Amino acid sequence: MIALFTDFGPSGPYTGQVHAVLLEQAPGVPVVELFSDAPTQDPRSAAYLLAGYFRELPVGTVYLCVVDPGVGSDRKPVIVHAEDRWLVGPDNGLFHTVCSRVPAARCWEILWRPQRLSMSFHGRDLFAPVAARLAMGAQPECRELPPGSCRRVGWPEDLASVVYVDHYGNAITGLRATLVPRTAVLKVGDNFLRRARTFSEVAVGEGFWYEHSSGLVEVAVNRGRADHLLGAAVGTVVTILGDS
Amino acid sequence: MIALFTDFGPSGPYTGQVHAVLLEQAPGVPVVELFSDAPTQDPRSAAYLLAGYFRELPVGTVYLCVVDPGVGSDRKPVIVHAEDRWLVGPDNGLFHTVCSRVPAARCWEILWRPQRLSMSFHGRDLFAPVAARLAMGAQPECRELPPGSCRRVGWPEDLASVVYVDHYGNAITGLRATLVPRTAVLKVGDNFLRRARTFSEVAVGEGFWYEHSSGLVEVAVNRGRADHLLGAAVGTVVTILGDS
Amino acid sequence: MIALFTDFGPSGPYTGQVHAVLLEQAPGVPVVELFSDAPTQDPRSAAYLLAGYFRELPVGTVYLCVVDPGVGSDRKPVIVHAEDRWLVGPDNGLFHTVCSRVPAARCWEILWRPQRLSMSFHGRDLFAPVAARLAMGAQPECRELPPGSCRRVGWPEDLASVVYVDHYGNAITGLRATLVPRTAVLKVGDNFLRRARTFSEVAVGEGFWYEHSSGLVEVAVNRGRADHLLGAAVGTVVTILGDS
Repeated sequence: MIALFTDFGPSGPYTGQVHAVLLEQAPGVPVVELFSDAPTQDPRSAAYLLAGYFRELPVGTVYLCVVDPGVGSDRKPVIVHAEDRWLVGPDNGLFHTVCSRVPAARCWEILWRPQRLSMSFHGRDLFAPVAARLAMGAQPECRELPPGSCRRVGWPEDLASVVYVDHYGNAITGLRATLVPRTAVLKVGDNFLRRARTFSEVAVGEGFWYEHSSGLVEVAVNRGRADHLLGAAVGTVVTILGDS
Repeated sequence: MIALFTDFGPSGPYTGQVHAVLLEQAPGVPVVELFSDAPTQDPRSAAYLLAGYFRELPVGTVYLCVVDPGVGSDRKPVIVHAEDRWLVGPDNGLFHTVCSRVPAARCWEILWRPQRLSMSFHGRDLFAPVAARLAMGAQPECRELPPGSCRRVGWPEDLASVVYVDHYGNAITGLRATLVPRTAVLKVGDNFLRRARTFSEVAVGEGFWYEHSSGLVEVAVNRGRADHLLGAAVGTVVTILGDS
Repeated sequence: MIALFTDFGPSGPYTGQVHAVLLEQAPGVPVVELFSDAPTQDPRSAAYLLAGYFRELPVGTVYLCVVDPGVGSDRKPVIVHAEDRWLVGPDNGLFHTVCSRVPAARCWEILWRPQRLSMSFHGRDLFAPVAARLAMGAQPECRELPPGSCRRVGWPEDLASVVYVDHYGNAITGLRATLVPRTAVLKVGDNFLRRARTFSEVAVGEGFWYEHSSGLVEVAVNRGRADHLLGAAVGTVVTILGDS
């Protein structure tokens, strides 16, 4: 299976063009759009979101990851192998969190180049063909990098800010729920939020935090939009306060 | 064929995660995204929209229906069988209209439970695996409910309000067009709208109502957006006035 | 392969309904959503966008093209054959640019009619079945039109305005980049923009123009949204000024 994790947007041409490449170069391999609205041009937020999702799909899945504001610059194209999944994309920090949390992860610089390589769409021209080759059991020409290569100095283990706002207005953070005490209060803007297990545990219109199905902390409002009501957007800081 | 009728949004992770489950558990069965923007957290409006669409796809289709604000509460997961289609989802009124209009419809409570059942994503964990089993010709453990179980007391036969606004800004209502006299005038906000057969029958910028391809009454503006120009949103009341 | 080029929107029911028809009538043929947000109800802008993309997918691809504000009027349904691709859709100018730039293009009026032909959804009822037949190697009943039939008098060779704004806020124009001098300055609103090869060549927040991966001129801002910062929307005029 190939999973798309991109900031291409829900409708544009870019996702379709990548699908067309995969259809031709990895015929018969199913392709799933996991995210087409990963944090736009923001590989740092995207890194923590990706880390919450990369175990979601089965062993053997190839994640085609494109959040690539530096396309056309000298950032390296890389392949990461972690927990029996492949990840393909730019080395701009996007794979920092996966590599930090999986010490046995391995990284390669992609040396293979396609015949057509546009200046602005390596998703179609470079990363999709590489993902197709991996999904077909081949490995394009590459060079293994020393351990820790895809990590970034100074980036935290967990990110205490919003990394994704979903269609309901719920705000996923870069914090793993298992590492936040159940009694902690989270501060988002001027709001102080306690933990609940599920939406229906709190009153309609009330804000809370809980363990999202991704394993990340999510900030939500029962039958309301946390983005509007709590002022939560990608990048909004979340502060963990002592026990409630 | 499995058809998705959800409020997951056009891009998020939820639709992709459901696709991944279906790929694994119903390999080879085509999956069509019918709606990923059904009325958000609004099973009542969604019920009338679904009733306009559930005959659209061929006999045998399994509709995976998730508009589920009460996920994690004690609302029942159910299967409905109506006119040789299967519908799977929460018993929160979402199937009221189909069951009202199809007296021979049958309902079952789903007793089967998956090994992993998150508090907030039964679409992935429960409903998708059940839909996959039905599509593969199996039936998960369940218990038939008495006739009329999935209906709601007091909900009308047709819903005289907007249940969906499409990409063009046209507003689909919960009214079946065959039950509204062709000479009726519809009042939406301060606007009085007559029937037309097609967009090109009225002047550019003029509002009208017509029989949408779903069989429901749609309120529209020729080459304009009815949502902006007539103030139509999900929930906006539509009043049927006497003959024009 | 069948490629969808429509203004149906990213989530609605229309794309899913078309997929369902194609699944039934062209089983096994892959379908790619190239655009589901082509210029809404604007066949003129869409014509220049389509011309930038119709060579993108492989020889033999059938493009199902629906930007059809005149559905239900007497505009003809047509098939175009150009550079070994098929295009199916309404004869409302949508195929003008392809036919202008490919002198050997051939056009047919579609005479075949389906049993069910709604007034407002020829994409589902007429164009999708015709695309399915072409993809399966059949040709529905049709009548060849004289050369030049799908063109429009007075429409320019290239369109000096924005025809698409992508998810990043970048604005694709109807101008082929190879025909604009590399030293030209483009004026968009009050902004004067020079050419760059790639985003990372200009300062953060700076506007520029470049050759988009489609071959069309795109107006962009490095790590910013050109739609917001330059006031670019579909229809915004772009003026080509002399050498910089």
